[in-house]
Amino acid sequence: MIIVMEAQATPAHIQQVSSKLEEKGFQVHLSQGVERTIIGAIGQKTTTTMELFETLPGVEKVVPIAQPFKMASREFKPDSSLIEVGGQMIGNGQVQIIAGPCAVEGRSKFLEVAHAVKESGATMLRGGAFKPRTSPYAFQGLEHEGLEILAEARQITGLPVVTEIMDPRLVNEVADYVDILQVGARNMQNFFLLRELGKIQRPILLKRGPSATIEEWIMAAEYIISSGNEQVIMCERGIRSFENYTRNTLDLSAVPLIKQLTHLPIIVDPSHGTGKWKLVEPMALAAIGAGADGVMVEVHQNPSEALSDGPQSLTPENFARLVTRVNKMVMALRATEN
Amino acid sequence: MIIVMEAQATPAHIQQVSSKLEEKGFQVHLSQGVERTIIGAIGQKTTTTMELFETLPGVEKVVPIAQPFKMASREFKPDSSLIEVGGQMIGNGQVQIIAGPCAVEGRSKFLEVAHAVKESGATMLRGGAFKPRTSPYAFQGLEHEGLEILAEARQITGLPVVTEIMDPRLVNEVADYVDILQVGARNMQNFFLLRELGKIQRPILLKRGPSATIEEWIMAAEYIISSGNEQVIMCERGIRSFENYTRNTLDLSAVPLIKQLTHLPIIVDPSHGTGKWKLVEPMALAAIGAGADGVMVEVHQNPSEALSDGPQSLTPENFARLVTRVNKMVMALRATEN
Amino acid sequence: MIIVMEAQATPAHIQQVSSKLEEKGFQVHLSQGVERTIIGAIGQKTTTTMELFETLPGVEKVVPIAQPFKMASREFKPDSSLIEVGGQMIGNGQVQIIAGPCAVEGRSKFLEVAHAVKESGATMLRGGAFKPRTSPYAFQGLEHEGLEILAEARQITGLPVVTEIMDPRLVNEVADYVDILQVGARNMQNFFLLRELGKIQRPILLKRGPSATIEEWIMAAEYIISSGNEQVIMCERGIRSFENYTRNTLDLSAVPLIKQLTHLPIIVDPSHGTGKWKLVEPMALAAIGAGADGVMVEVHQNPSEALSDGPQSLTPENFARLVTRVNKMVMALRATEN
Amino acid sequence: MIIVMEAQATPAHIQQVSSKLEEKGFQVHLSQGVERTIIGAIGQKTTTTMELFETLPGVEKVVPIAQPFKMASREFKPDSSLIEVGGQMIGNGQVQIIAGPCAVEGRSKFLEVAHAVKESGATMLRGGAFKPRTSPYAFQGLEHEGLEILAEARQITGLPVVTEIMDPRLVNEVADYVDILQVGARNMQNFFLLRELGKIQRPILLKRGPSATIEEWIMAAEYIISSGNEQVIMCERGIRSFENYTRNTLDLSAVPLIKQLTHLPIIVDPSHGTGKWKLVEPMALAAIGAGADGVMVEVHQNPSEALSDGPQSLTPENFARLVTRVNKMVMALRATEN
Repeated sequence: MIIVMEAQATPAHIQQVSSKLEEKGFQVHLSQGVERTIIGAIGQKTTTTMELFETLPGVEKVVPIAQPFKMASREFKPDSSLIEVGGQMIGNGQVQIIAGPCAVEGRSKFLEVAHAVKESGATMLRGGAFKPRTSPYAFQGLEHEGLEILAEARQITGLPVVTEIMDPRLVNEVADYVDILQVGARNMQNFFLLRELGKIQRPILLKRGPSATIEEWIMAAEYIISSGNEQVIMCERGIRSFENYTRNTLDLSAVPLIKQLTHLPIIVDPSHGTGKWKLVEPMALAAIGAGADGVMVEVHQNPSEALSDGPQSLTPENFARLVTRVNKMVMALRATEN
Repeated sequence: MIIVMEAQATPAHIQQVSSKLEEKGFQVHLSQGVERTIIGAIGQKTTTTMELFETLPGVEKVVPIAQPFKMASREFKPDSSLIEVGGQMIGNGQVQIIAGPCAVEGRSKFLEVAHAVKESGATMLRGGAFKPRTSPYAFQGLEHEGLEILAEARQITGLPVVTEIMDPRLVNEVADYVDILQVGARNMQNFFLLRELGKIQRPILLKRGPSATIEEWIMAAEYIISSGNEQVIMCERGIRSFENYTRNTLDLSAVPLIKQLTHLPIIVDPSHGTGKWKLVEPMALAAIGAGADGVMVEVHQNPSEALSDGPQSLTPENFARLVTRVNKMVMALRATEN
Repeated sequence: MIIVMEAQATPAHIQQVSSKLEEKGFQVHLSQGVERTIIGAIGQKTTTTMELFETLPGVEKVVPIAQPFKMASREFKPDSSLIEVGGQMIGNGQVQIIAGPCAVEGRSKFLEVAHAVKESGATMLRGGAFKPRTSPYAFQGLEHEGLEILAEARQITGLPVVTEIMDPRLVNEVADYVDILQVGARNMQNFFLLRELGKIQRPILLKRGPSATIEEWIMAAEYIISSGNEQVIMCERGIRSFENYTRNTLDLSAVPLIKQLTHLPIIVDPSHGTGKWKLVEPMALAAIGAGADGVMVEVHQNPSEALSDGPQSLTPENFARLVTRVNKMVMALRATEN
Repeated sequence: MIIVMEAQATPAHIQQVSSKLEEKGFQVHLSQGVERTIIGAIGQKTTTTMELFETLPGVEKVVPIAQPFKMASREFKPDSSLIEVGGQMIGNGQVQIIAGPCAVEGRSKFLEVAHAVKESGATMLRGGAFKPRTSPYAFQGLEHEGLEILAEARQITGLPVVTEIMDPRLVNEVADYVDILQVGARNMQNFFLLRELGKIQRPILLKRGPSATIEEWIMAAEYIISSGNEQVIMCERGIRSFENYTRNTLDLSAVPLIKQLTHLPIIVDPSHGTGKWKLVEPMALAAIGAGADGVMVEVHQNPSEALSDGPQSLTPENFARLVTRVNKMVMALRATEN
C-alpha cells in the first residue's frame, strides 16, 4: 500500500508511520515529493492494516495497491472456471437460459410452466420456495412443499433446478432438492449464510446486492470460495440508482468487468434488473451482447394472477420469442470471434 | 389504489380491470378524463394485489394510495413510543449517547474504554461480539467471549449494552447478555432474522440498510412489530450515494421524516455515517439539530490499533468534547421549544 | 391528477381543495375510501399546478396522471421519427457508427484518424472543438480552428460530422460548420442553450445528464422540440451511481424505454458510459442488442498521447474489430425480427 | 502520482512507463513489491497527464496523490476567507439567514415578503428573476423586471440581495442589480458561465450540482477563482440519491468537509435540499450544528399560490420560528467552543 502524508506532516510523523510499518512486517520506501512525502509499503496488507495507518497523525490517505480478493481473481486462476450442473456446463461459451416463475405457487401450475419453458428452449428451471418480501403481509412461499415440487419438476423435465436459500439452518435441506442454490440480492453480505454455503459442494448462484460495488460482490464470492466451495456463478440483477422508471438499473458493464477481474462465469437477470416485462427481451439480448454466460428470466402462464413479480414476468409465448432471438444472436456473435 | 389506463385503452380493457377489481372485493369508481380513464379502487390492497393489475392489458400504471406500513405508522399510533432500557427511556426528549469500540477486542481493553466513556457522559455502551466484515480475511469478533465481556461491563458500569445480532440461531443467547439487540445495516432485510427478533421482548436497534428507502426501512420495522415485538428503535447510519469522500452519505432528513411517518424513536450513527472521525462531532451536533433521540459513536482508546473501524473512532478525549457540546445544544434546543 | 387527502383531513379541507380545483378549471371526482378521501381532478394540469395543491391543509400527496412531456411522446406521434443527416437516415433500422477522437487536437492528426475510421466502416465523424473540462487547467479545445478542421474532414471523407456546442452565443457559428450539434451531458438542463437550439433547423444529439432521470431527459428534448426544432436524437452515455470501477453506469434499459415513451431515435456512447476502452466493444454490442439506432465511440491513433479521454479511446485496429462485430450482430438481429 | 503496474507487467513495460515519465519531467522512484511494481512519479501532474499513463501497456491503475484543486484549497490559503456583502461578513462565525420566495412574482408581493422576512430576522434577501424549469411549459421568471424589483427591495429594506444568473451574456447586467450572483445547481459545470463570473468582482454563491462530488464542486470554485474572482461562497443544496421521499438528499457532511478541504465559507439550502417545508426547520438547525455559515430558505406569504417551489416554502410565521431557533442554537454552540 501507499501512504500519502499531509503537506504539513513533520519528520516525526513520517518516522512514526515508518516504524509502525516495519513493526507490522512491511518494507518501507520513502519518496520525498515537491508538496508531500509518499511512503510505499511492501508486504501482505489486509483491509484492517490499511485502516490503522489512516489514523496516525500526519497521514492524509492510504491507497491500496493490490485488490482485496485473491481466490476469485483471474490473477490467481487465469483460466475461466467451468461449472457443471446436471450434465451441462456454465462458462464454456454456451448460453444458459434459466426460466420459471418467481415463486412456486402450486404443483400443477409449476409443472405446467416447467413444460412450457422446456419446450421453448430453456436449459434450466427456476422457482422460489422461500420468498423474502419487503412486506410481512405478502406471500412468503410454499417453503418445504415448494422444494418437493421443484424436485419433481426436475425429474420430469430433466432440467436442473435453481432456488433461493435464505436461512443458514436450511442449507443441507435445500441442497438435497435442487442443483444450484441461489443467494438473493438482499443476502449477498449475509456472511453466516455465505460461510455455510462454502461448506457444501454444490454450485452457488450469487446475486449482486442492489447497493454492492463490483469489489464487494467479488468479496462475497471470496467468502464462499475461501470456505471451501469453488463453484460460484455470479448473477447481475441490477443496482439501485436514482432512476426509478425501472425497478433497478441493470449494470451490464459488470459482465465484461467480472470476466476481466475474476475467473467466474456470470449470468444476467433482466427480469429483476428492469421490473418491466416489456424490457426483458431487449435487455436479455443486450446481456448476450455484453458477453454473459446466460440469462435468467421470470415466466408465468398468467402474469396477472402471479403471487409475486407479475409485472416483470413473460408469458410462455413471449419467452419463446426471446429464446429464438437470443440463440440467433449467440450464433452471430460466435461467428465473429473467429 | 388508483389504476391509470393507457390513452389507447379500449372499453373492453376498462371493463376487464373493473371486473377483476370487483372480484377481489374492491369498490370501483370510474373517472373519464380528457386523455385517459382513471379507475379508483377502494378496499384493502396489498403490494401483490397492486402488481397484478399492472399486467392487465390497457393499464398504464397503478398508484398506491395508502402507505404499505400499518403498525409502525403514526396514523396507527399517534403518540410517540417510549422504549425503556435499563431504567432509561429512549424517545422521551432525552438524548442518549451510546458509545464504545466497534468490536470488543478483549476484556481489559473493553472495560477501560467503558469506564472512560461513562465518565465522559455516555448513557449506554456499544461493542460488537460478532463482526460481519466485507473481507473473509478480516477480524470476525470474539463471539461468545465478547458477549461475556459486554455483560461484565454492564454490571460494572451500570450502563445498558447494545450489540449486533446476525445469526437467527443465536437470538436467545445474545438476548441473555445484552439490553438492546442491534440489526446491522447489511441485515436490515434478513427477514428470517427480523421474524425471530419479533418473538422476543427486548428492544431492537434497527439500522437502515445502505440502499434502503425510508419506506423499506419502515417495512423492516413492521416485520418485527407484526411478529410481536413493538420495541423498535430506528438508527440512521448513512446511505450509499455516488459521493465517496465519506464512507456513506448520512441522510439526516430521515430523522424528521421517521418522526412524521412513524411513532418510533430514532438515533443517528455519525461514525459509520461518515467513516471519518473528524466529521463525527459536527455530524453528531447536526443530528441533534435534526431532532434525533440520541447518537451512537465509536470510541477507542487507541484508534490506530483498533481491529476494525479505527478511522472513524474518536479518542476518549474527543468523545468527552462531543458529549459536552451535544448536551449544551440539547439544552438550547429545548429552551426554544417553549 | 389525483389528490390523496390525509386520514385526518376534515370535510372543510376537502371542500377547500375541491373549490380551488374548480377555480382552476378542473372537473372534480370525489372517492370516499375506508381510510381516506381521494379527489380526482380532470383537466389540463402543469407541474406548477400540481405543486400548489401539495401545500393545502389536509393534502397528503398529489399524484400526476399524464406524463409531463407532450411533443416528444409516442402518444403525440405514434410513428418513429427519422432524422436525415447528410443523406443518411437515423432511426430507420440502420445502425450508425459515429467515431473519432474526443477532441480535435490538430489538422493532420484529425484527418488521419478520420480516414482510418471511415475505412473501418464508420458512418459519421465526431470530434470536439470546445471541450468542457472538470479542471480549469486541462486542455479546453482548439475552438474556432477545430471547427474548420471538422469541416475539412467532412469534405474530404464525405462523412457527416458531430460536435459539441456549449455556448448559446455560438449556435449559428457551429451550425455553419457541422451536421449535428451535440448537447453535452453537463448542459442537458442548460435551458437557454436548449431554446437557442430549438430555433435552428439542424439535428441535435442530446446527451443524457449523468444525474438526469428518463423523464427529465425527455423534458430537455421537449424544450428543443417545443421551441421549433423536431430533429432530436437521444444519446445515452451513462449515469452516475455508487459504482466507481466504471466512469459512469451505462443504463442500457434507457434504449427500449426511450423507444416506448417517445418517437425519437437513440444512440449509445459506450466510451463515456464506461470510461475504459476494454469495455467499449462488449458494451457497443450490448447497446445493439438493446435496440439502439447507433453507437458513438472514441477512437485515437495513439490513446497514450491523447489530450483528453485517452483511457476510453480505441485504437483504429480495435475500432475495426468493433465495426465488424457490430455489423454481424445487426444482421443477426434483423433476421430474427421477421 | 503513483503508477501501479499489473502483476504480469514485463521489464519492458516498466521501462516504457519510466521513460515516458522522465520525458514529461517527472522524477521516478521504483518499488518492486511481492506481487507487482509500483512507480512513484514526483512532479507537476495534471488530470490529463494521469490519464495518459493509464493507457500504456502493463499499467493497472494510476493513483493521484495531490488534490486537483489548488487556489481553493486550505493548503494554499490556511486562513478562512471572509466575504463582505453589503457591510456584512460571510464566514466569520456569524450565521447568515437568506430568505425570500423562489421566484420574484411581482413588485408588491415581493416587497411584502421582503419586509416580513426582514422583520423576522433575515439578514439577506433571495428571489429568482430567471427561473430554469424542468418543463418548458412552466413559469420562467420575470427576467429584467424581476431584477428591478430586487434592486428596489434592497434599497427599501437595506438587505443585500442574491439572485441566480444563468446566461453568460447577462453577467454584467445582473451584477448591476444584485449583491451576490448565484450559480444554480444545474449550471455548476457550465464552464463558460463560470469563467465569465471569474472576470467580475462580486461574490458568487456556487450551488453544488445534484450529482457533483465534493471534488468536482471544488473544481467549479477553482474555475471562478483561477479566472480572477476569489469571492466564492459554497452552497450545499442536496444531491441525488435513490431516496425519493425527499426531493434531494441533503448532504450535511459536506459542511465540515468543505471547511477542512478549502478556505471558503459554506451555507446550506434546506428548502431545495428536502423539497418539503415540514423538513426545513429541522434541517436548518442540523446545518447549523454541522457548522454552516448560514442557511438559505424559501419563504412565501401564500405557498399554495406560489408560481414555483410552493411545497418547500415556509410561511412568514414558520420562518420567524426558524430564525428564533437558529439564533438560540448558534449562541449555544458558540458557548461550547470556548
